[in-house]
Amino acid sequence: MRAIYFDGVRIQERRMPKPRAGGEAVIKVGMAGICSTDLEITRGYMEFSGIPGHEFVGTVVSAPVKSLIGKRVVGEINVPCGVCATCKMGDGKHCPQRSVLGIQKRNGAFAEFLSLPVKNLHPVPADISDEEAVFTELVAAACEVPERFPVKRNTRIAVLGDGRLAAVASQVAAAGTKHVVVMGLSARKLSVIEKLGIETVDISRQNVRERDFDMVLECTGSPAGLPLAERLVRPRGIIVLKSTYHGRLRWNPSPIAVNEITVAGSRCGPFETALSMLKKRTVRVLPFLTAVYPFDDWRKALRRAGRRDSFKVLLKIT
Amino acid sequence: MRAIYFDGVRIQERRMPKPRAGGEAVIKVGMAGICSTDLEITRGYMEFSGIPGHEFVGTVVSAPVKSLIGKRVVGEINVPCGVCATCKMGDGKHCPQRSVLGIQKRNGAFAEFLSLPVKNLHPVPADISDEEAVFTELVAAACEVPERFPVKRNTRIAVLGDGRLAAVASQVAAAGTKHVVVMGLSARKLSVIEKLGIETVDISRQNVRERDFDMVLECTGSPAGLPLAERLVRPRGIIVLKSTYHGRLRWNPSPIAVNEITVAGSRCGPFETALSMLKKRTVRVLPFLTAVYPFDDWRKALRRAGRRDSFKVLLKIT
Repeated sequence: MRAIYFDGVRIQERRMPKPRAGGEAVIKVGMAGICSTDLEITRGYMEFSGIPGHEFVGTVVSAPVKSLIGKRVVGEINVPCGVCATCKMGDGKHCPQRSVLGIQKRNGAFAEFLSLPVKNLHPVPADISDEEAVFTELVAAACEVPERFPVKRNTRIAVLGDGRLAAVASQVAAAGTKHVVVMGLSARKLSVIEKLGIETVDISRQNVRERDFDMVLECTGSPAGLPLAERLVRPRGIIVLKSTYHGRLRWNPSPIAVNEITVAGSRCGPFETALSMLKKRTVRVLPFLTAVYPFDDWRKALRRAGRRDSFKVLLKIT
Repeated sequence: MRAIYFDGVRIQERRMPKPRAGGEAVIKVGMAGICSTDLEITRGYMEFSGIPGHEFVGTVVSAPVKSLIGKRVVGEINVPCGVCATCKMGDGKHCPQRSVLGIQKRNGAFAEFLSLPVKNLHPVPADISDEEAVFTELVAAACEVPERFPVKRNTRIAVLGDGRLAAVASQVAAAGTKHVVVMGLSARKLSVIEKLGIETVDISRQNVRERDFDMVLECTGSPAGLPLAERLVRPRGIIVLKSTYHGRLRWNPSPIAVNEITVAGSRCGPFETALSMLKKRTVRVLPFLTAVYPFDDWRKALRRAGRRDSFKVLLKIT
């Protein structure tokens, strides 16, 4: 099969054997999304080598559960070992031995086929297009927030960032409260979010009120995000840390102690909720589809995904 | 009255007028404790100028509530405005206009007299000595932890630090669970904590297991504490940030997001619980009393409090 492979130094196209089932389902990849994590991987993040890509929609071609064959699916990315103490506690998502699709010890979606356990798969309702379905993993990550931190109608939420995660997280937040403000640096990208009826602030031009938010969602992917979040959140408020990045921040965390702020890390979320939100159009993702590239143009696609003005770039694999 | 005064540059003894009651109680200070915050203040922390000192025990000499007069008391340090939105929400401890005894907009305990609102005062039971009572504020800060984050008998807790806060916080933690380990750098100080039956680890000599704790209490007062806490806590575990300090840490918070760790800032706590723990000797503080200095020797006392091998240094004021 055709695959895009990162060997730890260079990324290039290769011919590779189709993944063996080994008790898992094999999926023919239709489309794959390019995430910042994929770009970070090509810079050495996670010390991964293999096929990157963890956002996808595809069709099951073989599976131990026959009813799945032929179904259009998306897939959760963590594959726990199932036997360690963490797994036995029911927290497989954090299994230290886990593999993660296209990120850790498991080939990903930038290839014609991938394999995943049946329990990771979720059939996609017919009224969600392929282009929309690829966003499921991202929407699920945003849905993790209100599942862990209850949001009321008057909860004041700031979303930091103007990329695809901020765009999606702000819509999920707006399903729970009237008070959502997205704060970013790109007037052009903010205008796309604003068209969905969400308030935005260009923080390069406008001042913002400090200590004014019950909750701040840090979706900048930048070391500047956390110190800004700390200034915006009220005492005893919550900062949800969604960003991951290379590089260190220089920071004094004393105000976190003094103002009794909670900083909660948050990562993957529930696919069922995400698919339901996509189906009901509670979350709209197509305004954030920057471009779809054919497999042959994968290098162009990666470059485009890395540009500051891009939201989401997809690869049409098969 | 005699007072120790910091003018923003130098600290020195002064004659000052006795505080006016203005609707508050006036307390004759018996003993005052020297806290790291006091030492930080003399280095410019909080941009405070005035009389430092916020840990004390004393006797009420005048009060709008007559029954308090003559009582031996300790006092909560935050004085909220009572009328702002934060106060109206019932969170006066975080009132942005608040004064804080010896820390912010209010003279403190390094003087013969201080004033505080009646509602801040707590009478001290007869079987708690003056030397013990001065620790109430510190014990209360430690009691805040189990009030906010329930501890079960099998909760695994690491306490980082080997100072007075770690010594007290580990005893409060040990009242809830069997699994408490104090991790510090001073073998001598750790040995004092160990005599109370609490396990200690000298991290300069011994390796520690990573991802092994449900909760980590960061009591080091050092930028090195938070990154160490992040390595020790299990995925989805809690780091309670007690430390405040000058200076910045260089740090990549991505593991907080990936491992969905919660970092919760925590500051002042309930005086009632603290006095009850001191009375029952659930928390023992006298092993951590390094020295008591007379008022005249306040400069020596401050120097002694700043030494790495000191736990708690007290000033006998009157």
